[in-house]
Amino acid sequence: MNKVAIIGVGQTKFGRRPDASIREIAFEGFQEAVEDAQIMPEDIQASIVCSATHYDKQRTPAGVIAEYLGLNPQPTFNVEAVCAASGVGLRIGWSFISSGLHDIVAVVGFQKMTELSSAEVQEVMGRSGDVMWESPFGTTMPGYFALYARSHMQRYGTTEDQMAKVAVKNHFYATKNPKAMFGKEISMEDVLGSRMIASPLKRYDCCSNSDGAACIILASEEVARKVSDTPVWVSGLGLASSPMTLTSRDPSLTSFDCTVEAAKEAYRMSGVEPKDVDVAEVHDCFTITEIINYEDLGFCDRGQGGKLAEEGQTYLGGKIPVNIDGGLLAKGHPVGATGASQIRTLVRQLRGQAGDTQVKDAKVGLAHNLGGIGMYCAVTILKA
Amino acid sequence: MNKVAIIGVGQTKFGRRPDASIREIAFEGFQEAVEDAQIMPEDIQASIVCSATHYDKQRTPAGVIAEYLGLNPQPTFNVEAVCAASGVGLRIGWSFISSGLHDIVAVVGFQKMTELSSAEVQEVMGRSGDVMWESPFGTTMPGYFALYARSHMQRYGTTEDQMAKVAVKNHFYATKNPKAMFGKEISMEDVLGSRMIASPLKRYDCCSNSDGAACIILASEEVARKVSDTPVWVSGLGLASSPMTLTSRDPSLTSFDCTVEAAKEAYRMSGVEPKDVDVAEVHDCFTITEIINYEDLGFCDRGQGGKLAEEGQTYLGGKIPVNIDGGLLAKGHPVGATGASQIRTLVRQLRGQAGDTQVKDAKVGLAHNLGGIGMYCAVTILKA
Repeated sequence: MNKVAIIGVGQTKFGRRPDASIREIAFEGFQEAVEDAQIMPEDIQASIVCSATHYDKQRTPAGVIAEYLGLNPQPTFNVEAVCAASGVGLRIGWSFISSGLHDIVAVVGFQKMTELSSAEVQEVMGRSGDVMWESPFGTTMPGYFALYARSHMQRYGTTEDQMAKVAVKNHFYATKNPKAMFGKEISMEDVLGSRMIASPLKRYDCCSNSDGAACIILASEEVARKVSDTPVWVSGLGLASSPMTLTSRDPSLTSFDCTVEAAKEAYRMSGVEPKDVDVAEVHDCFTITEIINYEDLGFCDRGQGGKLAEEGQTYLGGKIPVNIDGGLLAKGHPVGATGASQIRTLVRQLRGQAGDTQVKDAKVGLAHNLGGIGMYCAVTILKA
Repeated sequence: MNKVAIIGVGQTKFGRRPDASIREIAFEGFQEAVEDAQIMPEDIQASIVCSATHYDKQRTPAGVIAEYLGLNPQPTFNVEAVCAASGVGLRIGWSFISSGLHDIVAVVGFQKMTELSSAEVQEVMGRSGDVMWESPFGTTMPGYFALYARSHMQRYGTTEDQMAKVAVKNHFYATKNPKAMFGKEISMEDVLGSRMIASPLKRYDCCSNSDGAACIILASEEVARKVSDTPVWVSGLGLASSPMTLTSRDPSLTSFDCTVEAAKEAYRMSGVEPKDVDVAEVHDCFTITEIINYEDLGFCDRGQGGKLAEEGQTYLGGKIPVNIDGGLLAKGHPVGATGASQIRTLVRQLRGQAGDTQVKDAKVGLAHNLGGIGMYCAVTILKA
């Protein structure tokens, strides 16, 4: 397998963007990545446009985005895996380069979610569950993850306080990230006293719909060594799936099989173990998801995720710093952009550009990007 | 670049399928391909699910389809390039194998278009044009391609009779394809007398919305030589894009730039020229598109496409047999399945399994899959 490097990353500020269309949002993230990579758009041999569908009137967005970004006549197309779209896009970009098909590829993740009403977003999200067997019964994203939360509480004694700790941590780190949607610290009382959404998940246990884009520029080893002083290497790639319907999964509902499988593949390919990871980005669409991810990724033993959060071991300086850019909970979750944004954070950590939140001597970073109700999972391991 | 082979192909009958859901349609195409490849579903290391969006209530269909096909926990995700989705899916599958990531990959293309009313389909299709600058003014797919037809007629003297010849040919060959939607020969008078849709395109100049699925099983050289007596090799892959808005294209509107670019790349990679192609599948969403494709792919000189059709040179026994499985016009065009169906036809030709429509000693096949209004194009060259 030929080596593949990341030579540029970019991201818009996440939040509400009534002023910008999807093509303009995508351009902002793209422009920053191209400048970061010190290349020109015409150097890019293919673009992979990653988003979830139905949030915007524009079907097949790669068409308008490639045109607006000046990327014709190079190949472009759309990749969709709901919230894991750009995690999957990275794998495809890697393959295009590792196979020898291309030397420089852009992965562009974006989403504009705030044009729809809350009710419309709920309906759209419901339809990323099985529309034949589940969503007609009123399933929603918070509802699905609340089932996982209840199961984890019952089986392992995980508490609402432990979940609240995750929200407090991620909102704290968002104050240090100028690209984050939220910029205010919150207290345990704020979380625990916030409006109930789907018991036991309250407002602050849930991420926010937002607008934004993030972009990754990938290059072959030869090109990377030529154009970049600080290439970051894609060292492990894992991708896995779980059944979409909850009834077809392990009935315990305390773990995401696709995370376990994807992590296994990524660790194997990269030749590292969980203890070697210096900094991680994990998919905290809800506080309980981050806690389960700690366990599924091997950062702690099964059932110990709540305790890891409670002890503050996932803060900077702890056993394994997680989501110290604010995570989905506080940085925002414009779904198609999330995977690429996680990669951006890690690349900046591995280059030593993370400022206040720099993990000392960070050499290995792990990104975990979950799609939908956990039917897709991409785990990516980067090395400095 | 490591070699990649096609070891199995399958397809449903195209047409109206009110009896089957998308997962059931996908399964039919998949099952035939798996049997053809003589492998088991559990041998498949990744699946790539290709479709256009918004025709079905189910978002992110890879979730339900991978579950129904028994492909969990292996990687799966969705690829979209409107009508070129499975042409793009093939390129991704090729990269996964050529890079060494996987040994066996399934590309599953499907679409169910007949649940929506005609008016709804028109609206959905319109939104694969630019929703900011073009579709609000009432653009439709036949309208877009009618502009190309008028321009080609004006510039090169192409006639409605020449276009009608394409429809007559493709309906003739559909009578020999048990998987085709239509099974009746039509006459020049039928075409020329059919209802006007978007002048000069009449009913029989246009393909039909339909339901169906097609599947391709790809394998590494090592696996292919072990499991298959008749591997067909993916020898050239071209993918290119054009601006989505017509106003940003070459104003002549007589050629699709993305076809020219994709063909150039595929011919170069494969080391063949247009004259070496024994049998071709080209994207005949409208009769004029097939004529323009003849020229863009180099099967005749610029402006001579109408004449090539008129002379019957694209029938079996002619200079270059094109769409002798019925094409989109008469086999049907369930958009996400079309690219994979083209590949199935060529694989059967290159194996010598095409029965009545067998091209003698076919060694090189070319598939051309156009997306949307010609903003994406995948050209694939196969060798026996």
